Amino acid sequence: MNEVYGNPSSLHKKGYLAQKEIEKTKISIAKLLNIEDENDIYFTSGGTEANNLAIFGACNALKKRGNKIVTTAIEHSSVYSVFKALENNGFNVIYLKPDIYGKIDENKIINAIDNNTILVSIMMVNNEVGSILPVEKVRNILKIKNSSAIFHVDAVQSFGKIPVDVKKIKPDLLTISAHKVHGPKGIGALYKNKKVKIIPRTFGGEQQNKVRPGTEAVPIIGAFGACVNEISLERNYEHAKKLKEYLIESLAFIKGIELNSGFDSLAYIVNFSVNGIKAETMINFLSNRGIYVSGGSACSKGKKSRVLKNLGLSDSRITSALRISFSKYNTIDDIDTLCLALKEGIGSLVRYR
Amino acid sequence: MNEVYGNPSSLHKKGYLAQKEIEKTKISIAKLLNIEDENDIYFTSGGTEANNLAIFGACNALKKRGNKIVTTAIEHSSVYSVFKALENNGFNVIYLKPDIYGKIDENKIINAIDNNTILVSIMMVNNEVGSILPVEKVRNILKIKNSSAIFHVDAVQSFGKIPVDVKKIKPDLLTISAHKVHGPKGIGALYKNKKVKIIPRTFGGEQQNKVRPGTEAVPIIGAFGACVNEISLERNYEHAKKLKEYLIESLAFIKGIELNSGFDSLAYIVNFSVNGIKAETMINFLSNRGIYVSGGSACSKGKKSRVLKNLGLSDSRITSALRISFSKYNTIDDIDTLCLALKEGIGSLVRYR
Repeated sequence: MNEVYGNPSSLHKKGYLAQKEIEKTKISIAKLLNIEDENDIYFTSGGTEANNLAIFGACNALKKRGNKIVTTAIEHSSVYSVFKALENNGFNVIYLKPDIYGKIDENKIINAIDNNTILVSIMMVNNEVGSILPVEKVRNILKIKNSSAIFHVDAVQSFGKIPVDVKKIKPDLLTISAHKVHGPKGIGALYKNKKVKIIPRTFGGEQQNKVRPGTEAVPIIGAFGACVNEISLERNYEHAKKLKEYLIESLAFIKGIELNSGFDSLAYIVNFSVNGIKAETMINFLSNRGIYVSGGSACSKGKKSRVLKNLGLSDSRITSALRISFSKYNTIDDIDTLCLALKEGIGSLVRYR
Repeated sequence: MNEVYGNPSSLHKKGYLAQKEIEKTKISIAKLLNIEDENDIYFTSGGTEANNLAIFGACNALKKRGNKIVTTAIEHSSVYSVFKALENNGFNVIYLKPDIYGKIDENKIINAIDNNTILVSIMMVNNEVGSILPVEKVRNILKIKNSSAIFHVDAVQSFGKIPVDVKKIKPDLLTISAHKVHGPKGIGALYKNKKVKIIPRTFGGEQQNKVRPGTEAVPIIGAFGACVNEISLERNYEHAKKLKEYLIESLAFIKGIELNSGFDSLAYIVNFSVNGIKAETMINFLSNRGIYVSGGSACSKGKKSRVLKNLGLSDSRITSALRISFSKYNTIDDIDTLCLALKEGIGSLVRYR
């Protein structure tokens, strides 16, 4: 902001330098995601806007060709809520049910797609339990079914954690967000294959090919790129895996803990319930000890988790569910600290019935 | 970002601290704009999104009551393009014509409003020529006309430059943007009177009362607040006024300059044409000398200015128009430097015919 403060659309040198910053970040993202043309990347204010643009944009572009949408019951609220809004506008949305660990059977995807299907939107990794969904199968399924549906992947939770390979997954649209990789909140991006047309949702200047106008958020776009350049996928994953294994082993020794994440889920997320203790109560107890964990998704602000409900968990287990997320900065010591505090909490907190 | 990195929706202390940062900025903005309840402020990714949310949100909320919209022909593209899109959806948009200095006669507003009018959207200051529009008259006009139309003000260009008093203007919706007051690009806000209902455009989590969901951009919201706290309206205005007077005096001695801004326009903007020299050519010439000026609006990336056309200027005058914007950091020396370079440019650059 001190040096490259020009408006990227300005014709002078300060504008040119700002434009260069944007391009640098696009190139960094394209490299990480194996995107052929970095100009297929459009910046948004975050994952929520990117998901809204992708889904409304695709459905508005194809609404004359059909009204059926295939998605899952465990998408993030920025996908799920859009579909709920579209249902009020005549769209028929199929919400595929997961198994108890949040996994989606690819046969369910095959069976759900028909000639009327205009959009398939499936997340790559679930944000609450870390289950990994078979997005790499979808392109082939669409081919076999001879479907021209647009294929959208919400990759917010997988991006920067496991390989997200656009050439392999072949999505038409793919959502990412900076603040999941230590970047600033307020910036995300939508990959859009140039062959795919979507209807823009925002109208204004000539920026970003008019797909998403508005003066680009240069400083946080620059920060986004810097964070992407810092990502070391394999090393970080190995680290998270060790932490997860150690946490699961440690939790096994604590009475009243029930694991909600599957063993083959993302190494960065462990979801478990603490029998008889409300999540808010335990979150507060841990917070006072400098340990910051979530209950369900932060975006749902303490409401009962739709994702866990769709996993078939009991109400009491949902109400008491905690989500631990690891970063490369966490240590084995952190986990010891957490488990000690959990034991203390379980011993001292008032139980509900 | 180093200290308050929590998700403001998280239930733990780090989340609470992030929420506090957001509240602090809201209070700063509310103070500057004389807004009674700071919770009537909703953050967006910038002026473009705020204008889109305001206009689509209002029109979708009231479309059953009428289809007429009153606005001006010189609004920013993030307002104008939305109306162009709405025209394709059955709305009848009246674009009030300005005089040669970009001013709008309040009688034109009075005559344009009828029972079918659901929205009046008028900018406070034009971004290209700095004309000041009579937004302070609109509420009273609506009262006299017994109109229940929603009243939106795009205050992006006036905010932080002249007093924007919400209790006096009484808008239902008002748009501002951080990067016009030295804040980061990527953050803006919409003031929405709590009595007014608009239909949200983005669907997702529970953030911002669901009017504009998505994880709040805490670091740049914090920066926005810090910039607002730095604003010294009167002192800065006096400074800009001196610069403008000095520039206009100096330009009078340069042959081939025609002023496009009126004398009673905003002190921060001077728009003029350099007879026979294309704006891009002069911008490039000045840029090479470390002087960064605009031609028309940066958002239109060198396209022929719709605003200047609506002022009734000739094509050659539009093509050669430059816009000088002052900040509190500019000096009288800067203006001498600019005028010297202009003279040089006029002497050396190839003229078009």
